[in-house]
Amino acid sequence: MATHRLLSDEEAARDPRVAAIFADIRETRKTDYINNFWRALANQPELLESIWNRLRQVMAPGALDPLTKELIYIAVSVTNGCSYCTHSHTAAARAKGLSPEQEAEFLAVLGMAAQTNQLVTALQVPVDAAFQVET
Amino acid sequence: MATHRLLSDEEAARDPRVAAIFADIRETRKTDYINNFWRALANQPELLESIWNRLRQVMAPGALDPLTKELIYIAVSVTNGCSYCTHSHTAAARAKGLSPEQEAEFLAVLGMAAQTNQLVTALQVPVDAAFQVET
Amino acid sequence: MATHRLLSDEEAARDPRVAAIFADIRETRKTDYINNFWRALANQPELLESIWNRLRQVMAPGALDPLTKELIYIAVSVTNGCSYCTHSHTAAARAKGLSPEQEAEFLAVLGMAAQTNQLVTALQVPVDAAFQVET
Amino acid sequence: MATHRLLSDEEAARDPRVAAIFADIRETRKTDYINNFWRALANQPELLESIWNRLRQVMAPGALDPLTKELIYIAVSVTNGCSYCTHSHTAAARAKGLSPEQEAEFLAVLGMAAQTNQLVTALQVPVDAAFQVET
Amino acid sequence: MATHRLLSDEEAARDPRVAAIFADIRETRKTDYINNFWRALANQPELLESIWNRLRQVMAPGALDPLTKELIYIAVSVTNGCSYCTHSHTAAARAKGLSPEQEAEFLAVLGMAAQTNQLVTALQVPVDAAFQVET
Amino acid sequence: MATHRLLSDEEAARDPRVAAIFADIRETRKTDYINNFWRALANQPELLESIWNRLRQVMAPGALDPLTKELIYIAVSVTNGCSYCTHSHTAAARAKGLSPEQEAEFLAVLGMAAQTNQLVTALQVPVDAAFQVET
Repeated sequence: MATHRLLSDEEAARDPRVAAIFADIRETRKTDYINNFWRALANQPELLESIWNRLRQVMAPGALDPLTKELIYIAVSVTNGCSYCTHSHTAAARAKGLSPEQEAEFLAVLGMAAQTNQLVTALQVPVDAAFQVET
Repeated sequence: MATHRLLSDEEAARDPRVAAIFADIRETRKTDYINNFWRALANQPELLESIWNRLRQVMAPGALDPLTKELIYIAVSVTNGCSYCTHSHTAAARAKGLSPEQEAEFLAVLGMAAQTNQLVTALQVPVDAAFQVET
Repeated sequence: MATHRLLSDEEAARDPRVAAIFADIRETRKTDYINNFWRALANQPELLESIWNRLRQVMAPGALDPLTKELIYIAVSVTNGCSYCTHSHTAAARAKGLSPEQEAEFLAVLGMAAQTNQLVTALQVPVDAAFQVET
Repeated sequence: MATHRLLSDEEAARDPRVAAIFADIRETRKTDYINNFWRALANQPELLESIWNRLRQVMAPGALDPLTKELIYIAVSVTNGCSYCTHSHTAAARAKGLSPEQEAEFLAVLGMAAQTNQLVTALQVPVDAAFQVET
Repeated sequence: MATHRLLSDEEAARDPRVAAIFADIRETRKTDYINNFWRALANQPELLESIWNRLRQVMAPGALDPLTKELIYIAVSVTNGCSYCTHSHTAAARAKGLSPEQEAEFLAVLGMAAQTNQLVTALQVPVDAAFQVET
Repeated sequence: MATHRLLSDEEAARDPRVAAIFADIRETRKTDYINNFWRALANQPELLESIWNRLRQVMAPGALDPLTKELIYIAVSVTNGCSYCTHSHTAAARAKGLSPEQEAEFLAVLGMAAQTNQLVTALQVPVDAAFQVET
């Protein structure tokens, strides 16, 4: 299923902006494989450039390590119910060294967070003054 | 705002199950302060017991460190739009040592994940075979 | 907070469609009190008519009793994170006889559903053939 | 599609905790069939135990009857957009006696709740004092 | 996948209300094709009537043009993660003249809105008085 | 409520990047007023720069007019349940000329989209081949 075509390498080569991003993806990730998200986004070259350039910067190692960033990404993706994103970032987290023990704990936290979010909303708990920052 | 009352310590003391959980919260967290979520949940003693006992176990240090667990918790809470949960777990993450640099990167990842989730869904990108596990 | 004014009875009386719906709400519910949702929606008389007329029909006793319908309504509202809706339908469910024991079980189901939804999405579980209807 | 393998009975038999839960599922449900959710969750034996044991308790008959609990479960699942959960709990509700008339009314309530939630949020309606509990 | 059968034309002809709505869909849309949503909803004739009659009215040209209405519809559908709805309304928007340039800008807005929503929620920004209407 | 402080003009002036963005916001919008979102985001200068620069570009007039872009933005914000975003973009849409008639129709579309999304998900309608693009 799709609402937008996935561009082949041949099609990507026709637009210099798309070609440049595809080349950068391949170099950054040290692989010839370009996953479907980028091939779909390539229908909109300006958006492709903007998203890839920002994503590369945001997911680079920094004060948080790459695996932690992937776990945060999966957490958002699962909560948004994004199947593609859950698949792709789970694969990425495993490639970055997620151990089975870490995955088990991660899933347990995901489930508890969803549960307590739901209960807090059902109970409409007022925010403690201690948790608020003075504006 | 609330749909359930917040139980005072005096009211909590009337039900031995609630009293026991409140005592365990105080001991586990090394503070006399009990935040509103537990005071609201105390209207349902069985649920209070179940949630607290599970949460204590899930959030304990393990293969993932407590700060990473808090970041995952915030990611779910923000994505669910739970104001109380966002406040309480942001406070908890800071208490567990979240640095301003980590917070800045965390926010950047949260924002990108929401954005790419949205684009993936708009484009209805099919999942790459490479991301799928054989069932 | 609001993005639309709440119409007073005096303002409602100026538009015959709004006046008629306000009269019908009062008669149907056997109370003079008109809650804020209707006062905000009254800025759009056509939408007010459409929503009230449909809601009255949908929430009437039928194959499902009114309390069960309220519980379903709260379940959707909590999951959508709608604070106003959670407040108003929790109040309605209590007015329709929700007991504390029922409320405790309801909250437990709400929490479990959120948790298992989250885990199913994280695991990306394929749907069993046994659960699918032939199209 | 999946991010985690579905464990076969043979694989399940290798871990005594998983084997015990699978046996309990079969006995409780009076069927040899174990659906994919449990086979995926079985990759995390501790989580499998925790979820099954809690779910069995929460969904048991009590102050709310089992069919009502299933309807609440579906309402949360649909609102979260969980396809697997919607399939499995719709099947369960039918197995517990959901009539076509009840299903038609259920769907009508689901749709109205989603619609009025959306309008309330668009209008940002302030919560009536009458709906709030004193904290 | 489905939880409800898709009614064939033959089955639709058995219920006069369903037959009448199917005829109206065909006439309004100037096509013999009836998409799956209506065939699934036809299992509930009353709901089918209510939804179609309201939708026809809401999506008709008015103060907002039909293409703008479709874009709003897609925006809600993507944010709700509704795959079917995203597919059907993207097809409808293209049929109503959505240009590639408009689609590229539309996707850019969708992505930014998701991102800033997420950041606003993470930061828990208080609403400016200037944005609030006096109630 | 807030999890991050709102920076005053004096504080903003201490970081040259923040000062430059605040100046650009004022010039672009032809007003001295800087709303709370930017004051909260200013705690993370890099993120502030990235978001403002991209937002300015995305929301500029193009193939879609600025009012249409605001309506799409509100649609996403309402569906995500973001109160701040709903307030701020509703105010922006009015400033850009949203008429009461347009607003009434917009709200009607928002409500219908939420309702049919919910029904589609409950029915788990399979996507018509006619709506799919060949990948």
